[in-house]
Amino acid sequence: MTDYRAPLEDMRFLLHSVFNLPEQWAAMPALNEMSGDLADAILEEGAKLCEQVLAPLNRSGDEEGCTWSADGVTTPNGFKEAYQTLAESGWVGLGGVTEYGGQGAPKGLTVLFEEMQYSANSSLTLYSVLTAGACLSLASHGSDELKETYLPPMYEGRWSGSMCLTEPHAGSDLGMIRTKAEPQADGSFSVSGTKIFITGGEHDLTENIIHLVLAKLPDAPDGPKGISLFVVPKVLVNADGSLGERNSVTCGSIEHKMGIKGSATCVMNFDGATGYLVGEANKGLNYMFTMMNYERLSIGLQGTGQAEWSYQQALAYAKDRVQSKAADASLRTEGRADPIIVHPDVRRMLMIQKAYIEAGRALGVYLGAQLDTARYHPDDAVRVKADGRVALLTPLGKAFFTDRGLECTVLAQQVFGGHGYVREWGMEQAVRDVRIAQIYEGTNGIQAMDLIGRKVLMNKGEWLADFFADIRSELQNIDSAWHGQRTQVFDVMTKLEAQVQTWVNAGEPNLAGTQAYNVLELLGLITYGYLWLRMVNAEGADALKAPTAQFYFAWLWPQVDTLLQRLQAESSVLMDIAL
Amino acid sequence: MTDYRAPLEDMRFLLHSVFNLPEQWAAMPALNEMSGDLADAILEEGAKLCEQVLAPLNRSGDEEGCTWSADGVTTPNGFKEAYQTLAESGWVGLGGVTEYGGQGAPKGLTVLFEEMQYSANSSLTLYSVLTAGACLSLASHGSDELKETYLPPMYEGRWSGSMCLTEPHAGSDLGMIRTKAEPQADGSFSVSGTKIFITGGEHDLTENIIHLVLAKLPDAPDGPKGISLFVVPKVLVNADGSLGERNSVTCGSIEHKMGIKGSATCVMNFDGATGYLVGEANKGLNYMFTMMNYERLSIGLQGTGQAEWSYQQALAYAKDRVQSKAADASLRTEGRADPIIVHPDVRRMLMIQKAYIEAGRALGVYLGAQLDTARYHPDDAVRVKADGRVALLTPLGKAFFTDRGLECTVLAQQVFGGHGYVREWGMEQAVRDVRIAQIYEGTNGIQAMDLIGRKVLMNKGEWLADFFADIRSELQNIDSAWHGQRTQVFDVMTKLEAQVQTWVNAGEPNLAGTQAYNVLELLGLITYGYLWLRMVNAEGADALKAPTAQFYFAWLWPQVDTLLQRLQAESSVLMDIAL
Repeated sequence: MTDYRAPLEDMRFLLHSVFNLPEQWAAMPALNEMSGDLADAILEEGAKLCEQVLAPLNRSGDEEGCTWSADGVTTPNGFKEAYQTLAESGWVGLGGVTEYGGQGAPKGLTVLFEEMQYSANSSLTLYSVLTAGACLSLASHGSDELKETYLPPMYEGRWSGSMCLTEPHAGSDLGMIRTKAEPQADGSFSVSGTKIFITGGEHDLTENIIHLVLAKLPDAPDGPKGISLFVVPKVLVNADGSLGERNSVTCGSIEHKMGIKGSATCVMNFDGATGYLVGEANKGLNYMFTMMNYERLSIGLQGTGQAEWSYQQALAYAKDRVQSKAADASLRTEGRADPIIVHPDVRRMLMIQKAYIEAGRALGVYLGAQLDTARYHPDDAVRVKADGRVALLTPLGKAFFTDRGLECTVLAQQVFGGHGYVREWGMEQAVRDVRIAQIYEGTNGIQAMDLIGRKVLMNKGEWLADFFADIRSELQNIDSAWHGQRTQVFDVMTKLEAQVQTWVNAGEPNLAGTQAYNVLELLGLITYGYLWLRMVNAEGADALKAPTAQFYFAWLWPQVDTLLQRLQAESSVLMDIAL
Repeated sequence: MTDYRAPLEDMRFLLHSVFNLPEQWAAMPALNEMSGDLADAILEEGAKLCEQVLAPLNRSGDEEGCTWSADGVTTPNGFKEAYQTLAESGWVGLGGVTEYGGQGAPKGLTVLFEEMQYSANSSLTLYSVLTAGACLSLASHGSDELKETYLPPMYEGRWSGSMCLTEPHAGSDLGMIRTKAEPQADGSFSVSGTKIFITGGEHDLTENIIHLVLAKLPDAPDGPKGISLFVVPKVLVNADGSLGERNSVTCGSIEHKMGIKGSATCVMNFDGATGYLVGEANKGLNYMFTMMNYERLSIGLQGTGQAEWSYQQALAYAKDRVQSKAADASLRTEGRADPIIVHPDVRRMLMIQKAYIEAGRALGVYLGAQLDTARYHPDDAVRVKADGRVALLTPLGKAFFTDRGLECTVLAQQVFGGHGYVREWGMEQAVRDVRIAQIYEGTNGIQAMDLIGRKVLMNKGEWLADFFADIRSELQNIDSAWHGQRTQVFDVMTKLEAQVQTWVNAGEPNLAGTQAYNVLELLGLITYGYLWLRMVNAEGADALKAPTAQFYFAWLWPQVDTLLQRLQAESSVLMDIAL
């Protein structure tokens, strides 16, 4: 079952009515060729591709999985052709820089295509997302020579990319990596070490794979400030761009995983492999961070995308499956039993999904647009402000999205009863596939620590205050029907701000870690509340959005009461127990 | 990795210090041969069996799965021998009636053994749990002849049992079943129909399988009141108890599932199979309900058991894995990084598991003891009261346990980071395996509807009031250090009671369904709060229990604030939207 229909109406509503992105694009020279009509056309074409090319391979990709041999990794049937179709029509390079053959589309638009891709086939999508991430690193920090050599074939889909960060003993703590890079006489480097959990590290989709590898130079300082970034191609590239000798990088094995089985997760062995330094020495982690906001949001979109697919299946099933009569006589059909969508508890499960997915989609577009502003806006001050906004909200765009992703896919599976647990309907695959998104690209716990530490406490709540000031101003003229909900949102914002100031002054070492997840969830609910109010206030939103917004505030918003209460918990409740 | 150690200390603490079950057993003639020492010895022997026989087959069982052929179903290597070991030492018949070879152990004790079994190997455990359930139905409602024929070999493990309820079009709504039973001249019945999702419907563990089948007699009334219960053996039994001809019941296929792959989930075809009526005609669903409180609690214990296993692995991993330095200088080791258990957010994940698991274990024992009282107590009034308590709390013992089961296994998996997503450590299997427990034996949504409908509103909150009155009285003399938490619990009880009275008077058809899940979760949190207070108040609990109880009230209890708020939501937030 791959019954996916891209939610184009909701996507257009966000692009045009809620955020009016075409107007923002017009104000940025790098993006002003993108019109609203062109954006709509891109989404429509992207939708066809996802519905017709990617989605039909989702189930078979899970069943076949990837196969390792000493010669390489074989991906599921059809993946190679689908990747070529994607790449040849320019979709891998959709957000890529135009100087080297990318399409230069704004992130505010590409987030929607990414969501569709994840809905249709998360495993296959990872190959293109990782390639886009590697391209972004190269485009941002590589020399002209590196860019000329590698970007065009990667955008074209002839070559793909991987990000090689994690090592067996160094995952969340990359400062401990041991992979070494020795300078060679010709200016290249000899890279040696083992990397694990490398998505798309080896496969048969493309004729070359360009690894971006974190490694340490011989004289590098200890810890995070001694890490450099290298390009290590699987096959060395001749001066004319043709493929040369095989480099000394091999895939030692692939992981047997809970899900995303069509995505090859590789152990990569670099054994004196030839690599090329990207940018300056010892700035590798900084370069990662440039790219990480894009990648983390993309992984977040896996949460939204898979939730959307699951919701579509659950909704269709709930309308079709008959079981028990409606409690409400006015809803009864003539049959022995009614479609289960008449039962309030089934609707509860569906509404939670709908309310989270639509708010998540809105936050994806919002964050994508902020990334564009931070990168392309001509005004320095505007760029700096957007940069802070991106920094603040990226942990939500990764962790809050993917936690909701699991919650929603599990609820969608539950709507199916026993049929959700068997393979046939695909619901259990969605749960298995989406689960990784809470882990990779920085676990959600790491995201929460990043949020409360670097993004909130380190700047004494400045980015938070700036965000909340914008919310207050943007909701100034909202329809009076929603003033009650607005007051609720504003009140919680005020409480969180006050609490942050208390913590800034406290300096208790375990406090940030203790409250990290609570702050992540509270800021997530506040942001979704804000976006629901922006959505209901947009033109033409009445029938489309108001009932779901009502549900959000009646049902999901009250979670803030629990979180506000937890903010009072001292770290001793976690730290004072001998475990 | 099957590193399971049964939590015997905590189990003994519950049996003796918190609930003093040996004293209760002494008051019931049917149970007064069970002493505290004997109970401890049983738990110790049971622990060895689970640790040494069942646990080592958990991972291989998942990897091998079950195999169907026209000749039958092959279970994973080692399952047959393990089942025989279980049965031969009397563990399958542990709670069985002594007249026919059961051990007659109290449910208050067997719940702890069941928890251990599920911790060690949920797939294998299902075969014995289903057999015990079938035995209980037979023992409670079957004729002497049926009991004499079937119970001894089932307790001995030569034969096993299955429960055949669900049909393709009738799952939650059993009133719609179509399987037919035609009376035959010899007093037997000819049973025809298709049953799906039949756990242990076919396998190679035992030489016979005794199916308990819901079917309709030709003249049966429509709906739930026209359902009868039949014994349909896989192999017909001769008058002398020896095996005769194969009956016309076959396994058409097995399901390919997300998890519990060592458990055969069968499509069973009855094609004029010979069956024998259990008890009276048209009382089948009533008979199911007798057994269902036992079975639902047992499935609930899968949640607790798998959460316990997962917690043990996560705790060990958190002490072993080093990553990043502690924020708190006093916790730092000399290494480049510290064990991740020093990080508050990791401790948050572990503490949530610990607080839910230990309260869940307590509620399991509490419910088991109530089942014993309801069945065996000499005083009618005491039995009736316990029966109401069991009815009220069984939905928690199934749904609240298993929802927490998924939550805890997902958190335990998260502690492992990327290593949690690969097969190697077994964490992903635990998540896949436990997920079914929220679905089978009545989905958790059905449990919530049962709670608010039949157990709360139908008797105008009488059972709820009785439970709360007991809580108020039992917590009367609690240590003053816990009076604050007691007040919190009492306040929420009062609010829920008042709300229930409002609903009793309202008569709005969609209200019960709208609030069902909220009431389930609120009653779950109240009950866990009550049990935490009973535990901290028990002798010798200080060091063992107080810090976790503090955590429960600081961190998990505040979820009541969200739920109380949601109780105010009108059904329109779910019903008034066109989905």
